[in-house]
Amino acid sequence: MKRGFILKLQPSLYYSHTLISDIVQPGDTVIDATAGNGHDTKYLSSIVGKNGKVYSFDIQKEAINNTKKLLSENNIIDNVELHNCGHENIHRIVKDKISCAIFNLGYLPGPTTNKTIITHSKTTLPAINDCIKLLKKDGIIILVLYYGHPGGQEEKNDVINFAEKLNQKLFTVLKYQFINQINEPPILIAIQKKKDKI
Amino acid sequence: MKRGFILKLQPSLYYSHTLISDIVQPGDTVIDATAGNGHDTKYLSSIVGKNGKVYSFDIQKEAINNTKKLLSENNIIDNVELHNCGHENIHRIVKDKISCAIFNLGYLPGPTTNKTIITHSKTTLPAINDCIKLLKKDGIIILVLYYGHPGGQEEKNDVINFAEKLNQKLFTVLKYQFINQINEPPILIAIQKKKDKI
Repeated sequence: MKRGFILKLQPSLYYSHTLISDIVQPGDTVIDATAGNGHDTKYLSSIVGKNGKVYSFDIQKEAINNTKKLLSENNIIDNVELHNCGHENIHRIVKDKISCAIFNLGYLPGPTTNKTIITHSKTTLPAINDCIKLLKKDGIIILVLYYGHPGGQEEKNDVINFAEKLNQKLFTVLKYQFINQINEPPILIAIQKKKDKI
Repeated sequence: MKRGFILKLQPSLYYSHTLISDIVQPGDTVIDATAGNGHDTKYLSSIVGKNGKVYSFDIQKEAINNTKKLLSENNIIDNVELHNCGHENIHRIVKDKISCAIFNLGYLPGPTTNKTIITHSKTTLPAINDCIKLLKKDGIIILVLYYGHPGGQEEKNDVINFAEKLNQKLFTVLKYQFINQINEPPILIAIQKKKDKI
C-alpha cells in the first residue's frame, strides 16, 4: 500500500492534472480554452484517447503553432481539433457535452512571446459560462489564474467573484492556493457540476 | 490506468486524509493535537502501523473517552498514547521528530457535547509552533479550521495570518477551501517543511 517515499504538496499546475486524471474518462470530449504551449492539450489528448476529442483554442497564432509542434512531436494529433480563435467562440464550435474545460489565464509564457497580450474577464467570463452549459454531471472546469502581470489582479478578482456566486446546490467550487509565496504563484479554481440539468 | 468512475472534489476532511496517506510512512511518529471523537487518531494509527506512534491530545475527558472507545472497537491501541490535556503540552510530552500533526480547530462535534468549549489561537498558535519545531523535512501540519461558531472567525483569521507569514524558503503553505458554500465548511491549511534544520 505504501509507496515508501513522500509526496510534496502539488503546485497548482500539477494539481490541475491530478483533477483531470480523477475526472476525465477515455472517450470524453474536453476543452483546452487556452492552448498556450500545448501542455494541457497534450495531457487531455492522452487521457481521452482515440475515442475522445480535445477542442483546443488560442487567439495567438504562435500558441497554435507551438501546440501543433508539441502534438506532432508526440504523434498525437488525431483526437485534437485546434482553433486559432479566442475562447469566446467555444459556444459556436463545441456542440457535444464535455467532462472538462481548462483555462490558463494570463499571458502566453515563453522567452519570445508578447506578454502584453493577456486574457481579460470580458471574454473569459462568458467563455466559462459557455463551458458550464456544456458540462456533464461531475464534469469540471479548471481555472489556473496567473495574476502577477498588469491587469492580472483585475481578472483574478472578477473570476473569483464569479465562482463564489455559483449556486452551491448545482456546483462545488474549490480554491487551491499557496498563501506564503511572495512571487504570486497561480491560484487554481475548480468548478464541479453536481447535476445534469441546470 | 483508468478507474472507470469519476471522483468528486474532496471535502477538506477527506483531503486531510489524502495528504496524510501521501506523506506519513509506516514507523513514523505523528500527533493528533485535537483527538475529538478519535477519527484522525484511528486513521493515523493505521498508517504508522505497529512500529510507529501516535500522540493524541484533548483537553476534554469526553473526547479522550470517545477516542479510547473508537480505538478499542477497532483493536488499535498499542501504537497510540492518549493525553487528556490541551495541545499546549505537546512540547513537554513529544520528543521524537514527527512527520505529521493534525489540528481540527473548533469544538467537539456530537449531539451531547459542550459547544462553548472551543479552541483558541492563544493556545493553538504556540502548539502549531511547537509542532513545526518537531517536524521532519517534508513533514506536514494540517489545520482543519471550523469557524462558523462564536469565536471561530477570530481563530481562523489568526491561524491564516500566522501561516501566510511562514518563510517560503522553509515552508510550503497550501490553503484548500470551498468558496461557494453558505454554511462555512472547514478550510484546510497544510504546512509542509522544506528543510531539515530551521
